[in-house]
Amino acid sequence: MTDLHVISYRPEPAELSYTFGGRPAVGKIQPGSIVELYTEDCFGGKVRSVHDLPSQVCEFPYLNPVTGPFHVEGAMPGDTLALHFISIEPARDWAVSTTFPHFGALTSTHTTATLQPPLDEVVWLYDVDRERRVVRYHARRGDFSVEMPLDPMHGTVGVAPSAGEARMTITPDAHGGNMDTPELRAGVTVYLGVNVEGALFAIGDGHCRQGHGEVCGTAVETAMNTVVAVDLIKGVQTPWPRMEDDDHLMSTGSARPLEDAYRVSQHDLVTWVSSLVGMDELDTYQLISQAGTAPVGNVCDTNYTMVAKVHKAFIGRHTSYEGMHAKLRALADYYLFAR
Amino acid sequence: MTDLHVISYRPEPAELSYTFGGRPAVGKIQPGSIVELYTEDCFGGKVRSVHDLPSQVCEFPYLNPVTGPFHVEGAMPGDTLALHFISIEPARDWAVSTTFPHFGALTSTHTTATLQPPLDEVVWLYDVDRERRVVRYHARRGDFSVEMPLDPMHGTVGVAPSAGEARMTITPDAHGGNMDTPELRAGVTVYLGVNVEGALFAIGDGHCRQGHGEVCGTAVETAMNTVVAVDLIKGVQTPWPRMEDDDHLMSTGSARPLEDAYRVSQHDLVTWVSSLVGMDELDTYQLISQAGTAPVGNVCDTNYTMVAKVHKAFIGRHTSYEGMHAKLRALADYYLFAR
Amino acid sequence: MTDLHVISYRPEPAELSYTFGGRPAVGKIQPGSIVELYTEDCFGGKVRSVHDLPSQVCEFPYLNPVTGPFHVEGAMPGDTLALHFISIEPARDWAVSTTFPHFGALTSTHTTATLQPPLDEVVWLYDVDRERRVVRYHARRGDFSVEMPLDPMHGTVGVAPSAGEARMTITPDAHGGNMDTPELRAGVTVYLGVNVEGALFAIGDGHCRQGHGEVCGTAVETAMNTVVAVDLIKGVQTPWPRMEDDDHLMSTGSARPLEDAYRVSQHDLVTWVSSLVGMDELDTYQLISQAGTAPVGNVCDTNYTMVAKVHKAFIGRHTSYEGMHAKLRALADYYLFAR
Amino acid sequence: MTDLHVISYRPEPAELSYTFGGRPAVGKIQPGSIVELYTEDCFGGKVRSVHDLPSQVCEFPYLNPVTGPFHVEGAMPGDTLALHFISIEPARDWAVSTTFPHFGALTSTHTTATLQPPLDEVVWLYDVDRERRVVRYHARRGDFSVEMPLDPMHGTVGVAPSAGEARMTITPDAHGGNMDTPELRAGVTVYLGVNVEGALFAIGDGHCRQGHGEVCGTAVETAMNTVVAVDLIKGVQTPWPRMEDDDHLMSTGSARPLEDAYRVSQHDLVTWVSSLVGMDELDTYQLISQAGTAPVGNVCDTNYTMVAKVHKAFIGRHTSYEGMHAKLRALADYYLFAR
Repeated sequence: MTDLHVISYRPEPAELSYTFGGRPAVGKIQPGSIVELYTEDCFGGKVRSVHDLPSQVCEFPYLNPVTGPFHVEGAMPGDTLALHFISIEPARDWAVSTTFPHFGALTSTHTTATLQPPLDEVVWLYDVDRERRVVRYHARRGDFSVEMPLDPMHGTVGVAPSAGEARMTITPDAHGGNMDTPELRAGVTVYLGVNVEGALFAIGDGHCRQGHGEVCGTAVETAMNTVVAVDLIKGVQTPWPRMEDDDHLMSTGSARPLEDAYRVSQHDLVTWVSSLVGMDELDTYQLISQAGTAPVGNVCDTNYTMVAKVHKAFIGRHTSYEGMHAKLRALADYYLFAR
Repeated sequence: MTDLHVISYRPEPAELSYTFGGRPAVGKIQPGSIVELYTEDCFGGKVRSVHDLPSQVCEFPYLNPVTGPFHVEGAMPGDTLALHFISIEPARDWAVSTTFPHFGALTSTHTTATLQPPLDEVVWLYDVDRERRVVRYHARRGDFSVEMPLDPMHGTVGVAPSAGEARMTITPDAHGGNMDTPELRAGVTVYLGVNVEGALFAIGDGHCRQGHGEVCGTAVETAMNTVVAVDLIKGVQTPWPRMEDDDHLMSTGSARPLEDAYRVSQHDLVTWVSSLVGMDELDTYQLISQAGTAPVGNVCDTNYTMVAKVHKAFIGRHTSYEGMHAKLRALADYYLFAR
Repeated sequence: MTDLHVISYRPEPAELSYTFGGRPAVGKIQPGSIVELYTEDCFGGKVRSVHDLPSQVCEFPYLNPVTGPFHVEGAMPGDTLALHFISIEPARDWAVSTTFPHFGALTSTHTTATLQPPLDEVVWLYDVDRERRVVRYHARRGDFSVEMPLDPMHGTVGVAPSAGEARMTITPDAHGGNMDTPELRAGVTVYLGVNVEGALFAIGDGHCRQGHGEVCGTAVETAMNTVVAVDLIKGVQTPWPRMEDDDHLMSTGSARPLEDAYRVSQHDLVTWVSSLVGMDELDTYQLISQAGTAPVGNVCDTNYTMVAKVHKAFIGRHTSYEGMHAKLRALADYYLFAR
Repeated sequence: MTDLHVISYRPEPAELSYTFGGRPAVGKIQPGSIVELYTEDCFGGKVRSVHDLPSQVCEFPYLNPVTGPFHVEGAMPGDTLALHFISIEPARDWAVSTTFPHFGALTSTHTTATLQPPLDEVVWLYDVDRERRVVRYHARRGDFSVEMPLDPMHGTVGVAPSAGEARMTITPDAHGGNMDTPELRAGVTVYLGVNVEGALFAIGDGHCRQGHGEVCGTAVETAMNTVVAVDLIKGVQTPWPRMEDDDHLMSTGSARPLEDAYRVSQHDLVTWVSSLVGMDELDTYQLISQAGTAPVGNVCDTNYTMVAKVHKAFIGRHTSYEGMHAKLRALADYYLFAR
């Protein structure tokens, strides 16, 4: 581990990507490397005051830009890409959130189509205090204001999809994408099945914090400085994006209706744990039924995302992915020490 | 508070109820009273070993019995019933869980009808250690065994529905019912809109613990000894069941598909908080979007249940329901001290 | 068939029912009888001009009244009730339709809850020309007017539910209820599984015509004079409401989301036809996949309703329910001749 | 119309496309031209006997090939492409249908994930009699056999999606794709919004006939010889695929859950008719509610498809898309006469 490969990359606006798939790589990365990235917010940094309405200052489809894609050397279909998030830090002292016409959970939408007019389009600016680890909310139509803990995460991470597809970054599916789960924070390793040579991963949509379901459609959005350790598990497939931290295994599912996202995530966790522990599938189903949690990702995007999560203490602390999480955790410590 | 009205009630098997509505009360209760109840498990106590298959020892529709209904004196449509759960304690040192043909989230069901045969019907017995506050799981088809914390809750609580309806206890809806949320534990006050004179509340379906969504269809089921403080808020309506603990407000929604349960619960929390805080509805929508959590109740029953939850610190600790939760908390302390 | 038992019944307003279940019978009927009924419209006849807004002139839950319930002598759980609709004729020369706040498919609703205000509440009056068999539509905010064919049907028909339930008449489920399918017209025999002694069937919600899905939430609503032949198939169970006309078999499914209503109806048709024809289940699945149609019932009620329909020519014209449809068809002819 | 531009194209296997978007055109076409195409069946012609199981002879993602894409000269984003189907004729005297593991409406699937094993994979061969205009079904596990009318259609037609996306041909969405509606037969004009220069349309997945919803997941699949008239409406946008025949206007919606597909299709028909007729939106909503039908497309693909359909007689026979359907109808007559 003496040779620490560190790559820093800050994209020019014209280098941002708006799809997973359909784009050449912006760079190549060796497995075992560390990547220091800058990511723009979901509005491309164009909403900077409460007067910047997204429907006016942004242009469809140039929303939810991601940084990348990166080509991981040696990654081939059938492998699994591991991305360990070492740190996710707001790049600004302000952040933004909005309602957006016909987007969000408590409004009719493009597909939940009704004859009602949209909700008002409103922008909220948040103060971001990186020292005190808080964000401050200010009501727009009154004096209410409150601080909430900073809990940075990335809404969007993924690889190029299978089957020659290219998907808008706003859509979460089996390739990852805009899952919008608060579980994707620093300290977490994300596992993504590789569909094309080089994997072509990209990252974006940083949130200072987010409630479960991102009910209004946007979180506390800001640009991020993010450090990721990148590695590869050869010959191991991953059907849906998975996550691991020191204490938990997590599976995701992205689908509609929401119960299907729940089914996918729980089905993946049950079959994954069954295989790890060497336990009968129905025995595992029973155990997860009592031991598992199901943090909601998003209930506002083109697919909804659910997470199925279980504490390792309940399943015998078996090692997954050949110990990749522990390996990248150690690499992260070394990087942080060396820095 | 010197006169503590305490009522103890343990139903005979023939006194158990299988619907909300359509049944006369088993007793009358003064607002401000404390009720000590015994509740049977969801199988009516008939599944006592791994050889007792529910489909053989239970008879539809005699499933998920509740204790009650109780007539609350003075309760009229348009009022709100408050039930504060002082304690929920397993009445046995064992508990049971099962798969059940065509019931649960990872199987086709009565309405998600497919041509596939059902999963195997399997019973798991859990050890319940009330001293050490744990339950122990044993795999049926292998040696795996593990302890998990005891976290008792009631899956089912509700009142008689509106519109002259009677509903199976297994169905959650606006009247409560089988919401199956782990949030309904001791220390919580449940608010239920009153639909008929006397409210006619009932309680059942105790769980030693439950994962989010009750994915296999049953939790760690056992009989409970439960103590509830009962009170009434006159002239205040409650559209969907709500909960409050010392630190949180919670709204529930029960519907299909699951995103509708999410919408109902979030809509109720947004409008409730907006009204409590005197904050604009869109401002509240934004705040809850970043501050709220959404613990999944059930994704297996005839309606699915979601909970929308927010910490009181994020909304200014305004008093709800005329301070009812604090009042019943004090009554509970007095009862526990006096006992 | 010489003894034609004919019963005529026109309910007083106070005799109307608003639930299936939870009500005593208004009369007893021998199997083989003919019943001449009057049914009120879904507004109880209270919306009589474009100025009568339902939200003002109607009172929840007194909506969608049904005529009945009738006790069928000898009907026991496990039997099937057969209702053959001999004629369904508008009782007035006008009919009414409306938008209703937060009801319908192109609006947010009670459960698809959004923060948007409801659509305008508007009433449309239709002219009903029983001679020329047409209804005439008049735009409210312009001059457009058009005639459409009269195609009378009943939105609501059902029996008392199982498991001691009582359900609002507006809810369709396995007991029937507000299925709102245009397939339920004169010439059709409806089969309903009996859940309680006497079956306790009731009928209401006459429509002069209705589009697929009843997208705005109401059809061309009017009072009806309806003649029904009533009979019983002993010892034969029916899991979901079925229909038969001279040329078709039809199964219904009522559930949410809409794909579940589709699944239930197709599953029932496949298993029914498989059993009738003595054909392998997958062979039947394949045949229905190519031969069947799926007329949409409602996509606006508390459960959605789909119909699975197949022409008898494609399945060998096997006899169902012991030839009950042909028998009641003959009885209908005799009644019409004798009248 | 003296200069009839006719292009014939039969793709080599290597020229078939498996996505909409992400592929260069196979040829250029002038608006006003006629294209004679050969399309392969959804299995690429590889399932030729009841022993050819798709999971063995086909390779994911090489399923559901389309012929194209074709670049239409002058087509730009914001225009509408018109494809008039002059004829759709089976290219073989046999066709095939199958169950496919975890695909179809009456099985758990990739996203409606359960722990149940898949249904048996079975292949059915149909005889196609082009003279007598029938197909013949043969049961695999018994003697039952029956003829059904030939009613040829294309399951898949679409253009390159917006936002730089490339989508598997099996997915229907706003760009068209695998809508699988029996309404897409000869005599119909399909309108598709153009998203990229040249539109890049492609056609495939011919069905000899199909039931509503394609419940088992596949129709009576065969190769087709198809003739299409191609034209362009400049500067007119089309949000979702629409269809027109001599007597009907039709809108489609493709989404999940199925009620959202219904909402999209009905919303599009209401707003389209409102604009055509110059009628208030709620007046149109009312009219479509009583006059419209909703033929189900598919309830088995990655998005479900519904069609909203209304007879032109009920809306005043207003001309849509500048009379394009009548124009292409005349062109078709000229071509058929000239041939």
